[in-house]
Amino acid sequence: MSEVRDKASRAKQATRLMNGLTTEQKNEALALMADALIAESAVILEANAKDLERGRRDGTSESLLDRLALNPKRIAGIAEGLRQIIDLPDPTGLLLDDTTRPNGLNIRKISVPLGVVAIVYEARPNVTVDAAGLCLKSGNAVVLRGGSAALESNKAIIAVMHDALSRSAVPAESLQLIESSDRASVDELLKLNGLLDVIIPRGGRSLIQNVLKNATVPVIETGEGICHTYLDDEADPAIADPIVINAKVQRPSVCNSLETLLVHERYAARHLAELAGKLKELGVELRGCAKSRTLVPWMGEATEEDWRTEYGELILSVKTVSGLDEALDHIREYGTFHSECIVTEHAGRAAQFLRDVDAAAVYHNASTRFTDGFEFGYGAEIGISTQKLHARGPMGLPALTSTKFIVQGNGQIRG
Amino acid sequence: MSEVRDKASRAKQATRLMNGLTTEQKNEALALMADALIAESAVILEANAKDLERGRRDGTSESLLDRLALNPKRIAGIAEGLRQIIDLPDPTGLLLDDTTRPNGLNIRKISVPLGVVAIVYEARPNVTVDAAGLCLKSGNAVVLRGGSAALESNKAIIAVMHDALSRSAVPAESLQLIESSDRASVDELLKLNGLLDVIIPRGGRSLIQNVLKNATVPVIETGEGICHTYLDDEADPAIADPIVINAKVQRPSVCNSLETLLVHERYAARHLAELAGKLKELGVELRGCAKSRTLVPWMGEATEEDWRTEYGELILSVKTVSGLDEALDHIREYGTFHSECIVTEHAGRAAQFLRDVDAAAVYHNASTRFTDGFEFGYGAEIGISTQKLHARGPMGLPALTSTKFIVQGNGQIRG
Repeated sequence: MSEVRDKASRAKQATRLMNGLTTEQKNEALALMADALIAESAVILEANAKDLERGRRDGTSESLLDRLALNPKRIAGIAEGLRQIIDLPDPTGLLLDDTTRPNGLNIRKISVPLGVVAIVYEARPNVTVDAAGLCLKSGNAVVLRGGSAALESNKAIIAVMHDALSRSAVPAESLQLIESSDRASVDELLKLNGLLDVIIPRGGRSLIQNVLKNATVPVIETGEGICHTYLDDEADPAIADPIVINAKVQRPSVCNSLETLLVHERYAARHLAELAGKLKELGVELRGCAKSRTLVPWMGEATEEDWRTEYGELILSVKTVSGLDEALDHIREYGTFHSECIVTEHAGRAAQFLRDVDAAAVYHNASTRFTDGFEFGYGAEIGISTQKLHARGPMGLPALTSTKFIVQGNGQIRG
Repeated sequence: MSEVRDKASRAKQATRLMNGLTTEQKNEALALMADALIAESAVILEANAKDLERGRRDGTSESLLDRLALNPKRIAGIAEGLRQIIDLPDPTGLLLDDTTRPNGLNIRKISVPLGVVAIVYEARPNVTVDAAGLCLKSGNAVVLRGGSAALESNKAIIAVMHDALSRSAVPAESLQLIESSDRASVDELLKLNGLLDVIIPRGGRSLIQNVLKNATVPVIETGEGICHTYLDDEADPAIADPIVINAKVQRPSVCNSLETLLVHERYAARHLAELAGKLKELGVELRGCAKSRTLVPWMGEATEEDWRTEYGELILSVKTVSGLDEALDHIREYGTFHSECIVTEHAGRAAQFLRDVDAAAVYHNASTRFTDGFEFGYGAEIGISTQKLHARGPMGLPALTSTKFIVQGNGQIRG
């Protein structure tokens, strides 16, 4: 049996023991895991150093090395993340509906774990711990397939967490790490119907597209974010400028940051030059449409490709539009259903934008950077769904559950 | 542009007009559709006669011809189904959550249509109307791809409903029928990401498996039902016999009917012969394991293949087991996550069964035939989901919705 099938089978087997766990037992395991990560920091850092050394040798970019790198402070932060999961309510065993039918049949709908969750991700060791913690709290077994660049770090982290679980009521086999680093191991994982209940890809566009195109196991698409902010004719510049700057500059690498600014032509005539200047000062490269460039001649030229690009860095494309309709058309064509914003003091146009834009989160007069489980008040998240089935937007613990109908009678038969 | 892409694009385009519809406008359209089906019965029956004639010429089985056949009474029933949808609550626009964060940001979560729903199904013209009605009420556009055996009937039904919609506020383009009957048209549909939001297959195993294996658009798996009933040592025969007979005999062709009976060996020794005799009298062919056949020698022999078969007719496989554990193991191996039942007076074993069996609906002392949207009190259903994502069990109107976060502020930015 291949490593992938073997480990998925073990995870599936472990789900049989997960049903009987209490919230207290799961929380105890989370606390043990958090403690162990701190206690065994040295071992984890040693393994991480090997990944970093190989990464440097292979010419990995500095930004990737930075995401891969651990230090005592980062490990403490990761352990703290696990402890925060302890405080979140258990999403399973909730009574969602309770009906007694005229024939006396009692039908209850309760929340249950999904079963086995597979996560395919890139070289961020914190995802290993976050995903393990969220799946454990929601009663799921998890099969992790991280990027090969973080393999030594992940192996060390998993060994520490396995050891912690072996001292808890939670079966250590509920946590599985695929170590094969070839593409074939991912391809095999994507088709393990019957063993896996869902696959969640977390990473860049090519990773996600590969999972979407090749998986036969159900997938929750997480996402690419080509997010737009539309400055309406009646936008208040005192609000608009900080929103645009925050959405672009505060953390450009993340999916809820701004990629394309849409500006009403009258607003642009009055205010674009000043906003562009502020952005430039903050190190943002601007690429504009022809109209925008007549107003801000020093702006670079945006091509069709720019509208379709999630830069993930300090670049912003700018399009001047004739009004709300053109803005909506642009978002329909180039948006990725993530987070979209209108800045305006006009209630009617705000309402139309909020209704007609098809996205996980639609904003009026606030930065799209808020699309996040913590910022929404839902606690830790396993990703941000940009699809419409099952969960949409920031996915917290409830997104890791399914439901089950429990039907109890005393001999009812159908007439 | 191919027919499939063209019609999916038109449906997608129509969703832009669906957002603004009121519940009253949708209900009015449903009433017009129901009236038109009755008024135009003659045209529909004429088209149906062509399908039936071709079916007979091609040697289609009587049971398939029966499912395909329409008559004035059936059309009245189908129209009545549409009228019942009028009475169901509108599942969209519901406020599911409303939080104001410490920074003043107001975050509301509301239910919204999925967008464009595609249904791939077989030769049952009633599905054409049911699916159109449920999708309309939930604000979705729909692309229907029915079996070629019902093509003339479906074309006539769609023409009648289009005509009705043209007299309503609902865009007629929101209802699309794919007429190409080749396999390639299905294959193309399965990969229309960006135009379709979900595909729901309804039909036999091969249709569903084809959709699951080849779709890149998200799918809701509906299901095959290899349903089991386990008669525990402490089952009450006065309850057990009617439950087994009802689950097998009342309507054997449907997915929630019984396929495999599991019987505790002590219960079997006392009661299996009598139950088997009753089933035989009702025309049920029994196929048993070796142990069962020592108790009921006239029973046929069950092979491995029997445990994996959804008969859909008056055949029942029977396995005598040593107890609950063996019953649970059997269900784990051969179940299809649909509906599973235990008959027992023992509360502890009932609780264990209800907890440990992984299925959309788990039953204690009642027939599995109740797994149905109407029987559960949820109204009409678009299918029964046997997967865990998005919806599980009978899917009513809420399963045809997604959610959207509406975030309103007055200039909030992230710190």
